[in-house]
Amino acid sequence: MRLAMVGLGRMGANIVRRLLRDGHECVVYDVNPAAVAELVAEGAVGAESIADLATQLDGPRVVWVMIPAGITGQVVDEVAAVLEPGDVIIDGGNSNYHDDVRRAEALRPRGLHYVDIGTSGGVFGLERGYCLMVGGPEEAVTLIEPILRTVAPGAGDVERTPGREGELAPEELGYLHCGPSGAGHFVKMVHNGIEYGAMAALAEGLNLLHNADAGVREAEHSAEVAPLEQPEFYQFPIDTAKVTELWRRGSVISSWLLDLTAAALHENPTLDGLAGRVSDSGEGRWTVKAAVDVGVPAPVLSAALFGRFASRGEDQFANQVLSAMRLQFGGHQERPAGDVLEAGGRSADAG
Amino acid sequence: MRLAMVGLGRMGANIVRRLLRDGHECVVYDVNPAAVAELVAEGAVGAESIADLATQLDGPRVVWVMIPAGITGQVVDEVAAVLEPGDVIIDGGNSNYHDDVRRAEALRPRGLHYVDIGTSGGVFGLERGYCLMVGGPEEAVTLIEPILRTVAPGAGDVERTPGREGELAPEELGYLHCGPSGAGHFVKMVHNGIEYGAMAALAEGLNLLHNADAGVREAEHSAEVAPLEQPEFYQFPIDTAKVTELWRRGSVISSWLLDLTAAALHENPTLDGLAGRVSDSGEGRWTVKAAVDVGVPAPVLSAALFGRFASRGEDQFANQVLSAMRLQFGGHQERPAGDVLEAGGRSADAG
Amino acid sequence: MRLAMVGLGRMGANIVRRLLRDGHECVVYDVNPAAVAELVAEGAVGAESIADLATQLDGPRVVWVMIPAGITGQVVDEVAAVLEPGDVIIDGGNSNYHDDVRRAEALRPRGLHYVDIGTSGGVFGLERGYCLMVGGPEEAVTLIEPILRTVAPGAGDVERTPGREGELAPEELGYLHCGPSGAGHFVKMVHNGIEYGAMAALAEGLNLLHNADAGVREAEHSAEVAPLEQPEFYQFPIDTAKVTELWRRGSVISSWLLDLTAAALHENPTLDGLAGRVSDSGEGRWTVKAAVDVGVPAPVLSAALFGRFASRGEDQFANQVLSAMRLQFGGHQERPAGDVLEAGGRSADAG
Amino acid sequence: MRLAMVGLGRMGANIVRRLLRDGHECVVYDVNPAAVAELVAEGAVGAESIADLATQLDGPRVVWVMIPAGITGQVVDEVAAVLEPGDVIIDGGNSNYHDDVRRAEALRPRGLHYVDIGTSGGVFGLERGYCLMVGGPEEAVTLIEPILRTVAPGAGDVERTPGREGELAPEELGYLHCGPSGAGHFVKMVHNGIEYGAMAALAEGLNLLHNADAGVREAEHSAEVAPLEQPEFYQFPIDTAKVTELWRRGSVISSWLLDLTAAALHENPTLDGLAGRVSDSGEGRWTVKAAVDVGVPAPVLSAALFGRFASRGEDQFANQVLSAMRLQFGGHQERPAGDVLEAGGRSADAG
Repeated sequence: MRLAMVGLGRMGANIVRRLLRDGHECVVYDVNPAAVAELVAEGAVGAESIADLATQLDGPRVVWVMIPAGITGQVVDEVAAVLEPGDVIIDGGNSNYHDDVRRAEALRPRGLHYVDIGTSGGVFGLERGYCLMVGGPEEAVTLIEPILRTVAPGAGDVERTPGREGELAPEELGYLHCGPSGAGHFVKMVHNGIEYGAMAALAEGLNLLHNADAGVREAEHSAEVAPLEQPEFYQFPIDTAKVTELWRRGSVISSWLLDLTAAALHENPTLDGLAGRVSDSGEGRWTVKAAVDVGVPAPVLSAALFGRFASRGEDQFANQVLSAMRLQFGGHQERPAGDVLEAGGRSADAG
Repeated sequence: MRLAMVGLGRMGANIVRRLLRDGHECVVYDVNPAAVAELVAEGAVGAESIADLATQLDGPRVVWVMIPAGITGQVVDEVAAVLEPGDVIIDGGNSNYHDDVRRAEALRPRGLHYVDIGTSGGVFGLERGYCLMVGGPEEAVTLIEPILRTVAPGAGDVERTPGREGELAPEELGYLHCGPSGAGHFVKMVHNGIEYGAMAALAEGLNLLHNADAGVREAEHSAEVAPLEQPEFYQFPIDTAKVTELWRRGSVISSWLLDLTAAALHENPTLDGLAGRVSDSGEGRWTVKAAVDVGVPAPVLSAALFGRFASRGEDQFANQVLSAMRLQFGGHQERPAGDVLEAGGRSADAG
Repeated sequence: MRLAMVGLGRMGANIVRRLLRDGHECVVYDVNPAAVAELVAEGAVGAESIADLATQLDGPRVVWVMIPAGITGQVVDEVAAVLEPGDVIIDGGNSNYHDDVRRAEALRPRGLHYVDIGTSGGVFGLERGYCLMVGGPEEAVTLIEPILRTVAPGAGDVERTPGREGELAPEELGYLHCGPSGAGHFVKMVHNGIEYGAMAALAEGLNLLHNADAGVREAEHSAEVAPLEQPEFYQFPIDTAKVTELWRRGSVISSWLLDLTAAALHENPTLDGLAGRVSDSGEGRWTVKAAVDVGVPAPVLSAALFGRFASRGEDQFANQVLSAMRLQFGGHQERPAGDVLEAGGRSADAG
Repeated sequence: MRLAMVGLGRMGANIVRRLLRDGHECVVYDVNPAAVAELVAEGAVGAESIADLATQLDGPRVVWVMIPAGITGQVVDEVAAVLEPGDVIIDGGNSNYHDDVRRAEALRPRGLHYVDIGTSGGVFGLERGYCLMVGGPEEAVTLIEPILRTVAPGAGDVERTPGREGELAPEELGYLHCGPSGAGHFVKMVHNGIEYGAMAALAEGLNLLHNADAGVREAEHSAEVAPLEQPEFYQFPIDTAKVTELWRRGSVISSWLLDLTAAALHENPTLDGLAGRVSDSGEGRWTVKAAVDVGVPAPVLSAALFGRFASRGEDQFANQVLSAMRLQFGGHQERPAGDVLEAGGRSADAG
């Protein structure tokens, strides 16, 4: 079918490529003319403006907006201004689902359909396809189903779940109509929340393996921390690159994140050059806030999120407060090196 | 090669089967003669006792012990009593690696080699092979390498990690000599710790999806908890069985645990009949204790572990203490139903 | 000075009593005429409606609204409707500070001042005074300072902080102008967030003391959980009522919450009759959401909040998911009693 | 009564001073003769060696050892070597209660009593007295009760718990026989675990207050983190020194730790000069390990402990792993500054 794409960054451009390859017609627009030209060279139809783009589609028009979340609202408004009742606007970016709920409600009186699509797949999506989590009115989602089928990974070589039979369901092809407007980004948000937790689980475990030789390094141990009590149990120089490679085969925790970790550690076993300041995008935060709203315990997902905050030093004032308290009640300096050597002394937290 | 297996439970028996299929000779023993007979019928050589078993092997003998962790120590001692210098005892069960360190040290003066193997693979291991994490002296691990190759999954259809070339390394075949005695179970322990975290991440996320319709259920909301502030954002009746199936395709969080979850939810979408009292075996606990020992933060892994404790009601006294405090400072009963309706009243934690 | 109080629940009524005792004049109103009558009998001036109440004050009028958060917005609107430029509305309830920011902004064009006051003190406030966290414009806060001085605890017998000299600062008298509108409830919100964390810390510790005799109870241990590895270290029958009483004297963790806990445990050492379903009001939730918003790690405060959710069974679906996964990968029933006894078997998480 | 003190560091010396002031006779010994001389000048009896010290006591002898935990075992052995059946050795340091259990058992056949005392009170103990948590055999604890009464704070001006009547119980005087050998240090360990949690709760809350002006600082916001979504709600420049002072009066979270925090922030409102690398002694670690052993959830106490580890950079490798994964699946550099500006781009975790 024919549709328009607004926003030709890496994600938008690659989705267009998947669509073109599968025989769809794509009208494309971006504020950057070079991005348009590149895809025109690959078979797309170029548009010079959002208004121009609308004229190149027949109703019901389908316009997919693939823009950074911060400016999506404004672009959706621009697109809506040139559409007509029955047309469909897709937000395929990383919007907060709150915005979807609000936008769908705002567009509804004008007869415009709003469909939100959460996508997962990263840089591998062009080849592997994108996992699509879709929210919106039944009618609009049905209309765009041919697009969804193309952009999604399809059944691929994933083994069929026991008990599933007959024709493949949409979720087995890599796309799913999750519910009304907002449901797509809601499910994507939770997906990313889980991703944070799964990543942190792996990272914590690897950090422990990385320190499994702590007993060997014991001699260099500073007085700042409690001494290692049983150094004989921490004499293992573990090769984390090899272990992650190993776990890819037959282990319970084999996963795509593990594949990536094994690749990263094979390439750079010491992870030199990485500062370990871990960014976070909105989804992890929204997941925790949603869990708090509905009263669902999320200790793992929140610990993963807070770990990222701390990795960037956002725990600094809290830690200073702790040091200040300890100084007050113990009379200790921050690095109580001498204290533990003092005869009859007490370690720093003795309280 | 020829080896002996002591302990023919599901795991031990299936490992023997994999070995027999690949042409190895297995002498088998179990306290249950029927278990022996069953494997003899499949081609193994039966033994009537541990002493008998030793006589049916030539040096250097290799005896794999596959027994519940609680009695492994005692069986290892029995086996050691009938072995000779240069022989190898393998503990393939779920021992705490502390025990490995101690046992290896105890057996070393007698010239016996102790090899610990952590195995992952669950009920699928017979067909998929077992991921093998091996600790022990170089000499002994080299000796048993033919066995490891057979029991491990092999390269299978796992895509090769970018940058890896040439002959497949052992970790690419599904087994790895991780370090000295104890290292195998140490790596397996951390593996399971990660498993707990990854499982909890998925479970928390699914719980949030399960409650994404909280705004619809708001009417039934009791006064016990804070009211849902923006019910319009929680109107999604999400089908978790379909969502997990979806995520298996092209998403960042695709994993074997996700495959299993999708299967479980397809079979029983409401999870009826499961009480949600989640057991834990030793590895999750040992992981947290090891992290504490070496000073590695493990907030995610520990949250996952503590969540299991709480699922079994082990948080009961703590929660009663909280209720008791609230009763003291707020004068509130445990279910302050009337309180929030009281004019001028304050909600229960107002303190 | 003269002021009006709207809402005569426990908190509102007790604040009026403190004000009357100190010579202030209070015009009081509540939807419940009996509550009005009771305070009139104690010296207050009764009002029959909000409109009536306004006529009984001279400008600049000060009206303190002490109403459950859910209906505060509506009452503030009613009060605002009968006030004039320069008048002051105080919200002393448990409003979300977001509402304060919005309300202050809405009232500003009409020349009305909005002051939010977070109060702490619980049922003891009448005698001890209420700790007052105040947000709002300088001018209005200055105007109501005589009221704040009366309602606050005053210096009392709290030891002066080293380094503080001269005249007592407002914060030493128990009230503080924390910042613009919303700042009062923001500080109160964080206060309650801390309260959740401090309560949970105490509750977890007492739960551990309560289980310090786990080694004695080991015999009854089910196969559902990992066996206690060193029962000899858990032979202590600790009397938590006595321990909390002890800690009130000279220990680093002495606190008012500890006082209350000691009282509760003295009264009911086994906490019989408390189900341990712990309610939460909005502040703990808002604290976590605010921390997420600004990127401040709050692992302790969130763990405390999530523990309350779990105490009410809100972790149920997550736990069922975990049990379902374990059933899939291990072939284990939820209570794998038989499994661990099986020769050669593996414990339940062996994966 | 007459007793000996071995170890005259700050704690040991101050305990001797409290004892001398109350009329007890103290024989004192330290490896540092100056420390002995100083107390002799204050009225103590000096000893030149542990053997010498034993000769200066009559049976049943009481020897209090107040030495850093690392060398306590060795000193206890030296002391035990010069004692006789019926004599009492007190370990008042910060030993792991495991050691108490073992030592008591080792000394029992020789008729020596081992008493472990956990003490809390910090640098203020000399004046305020020390909160004493005591473990050991009934007979020995009864013998040393006069000492305990002197060293403990006594009833002081702590308000009596409602319902307590008649003669003051030991716990109301600040000491408690908690159970058999080890119970004293066990209770002290849990005390410190709680302390960690309570400190962290306060520190996290203050960090949030410290960042309540994040909306003002928004302009400087880097692309590394998700932008602040509602900057209008984070416009509060909160004075944490004043707020902590305020909370000391009438609030639910008033506590001694709060007093100390208020003092620290009054002295140094920006906490300049504190790096925020927070040490930990053994007790916090042992508490978490004990909770894991007995299956008690301790999410708050462990989060507090892990926060300290992270404050010292022990999360480094884990964070590098996270950055490495993100680089793999998103193709993003660690600080994806350009990425979020890209038209059609996706934020960094889009996965």
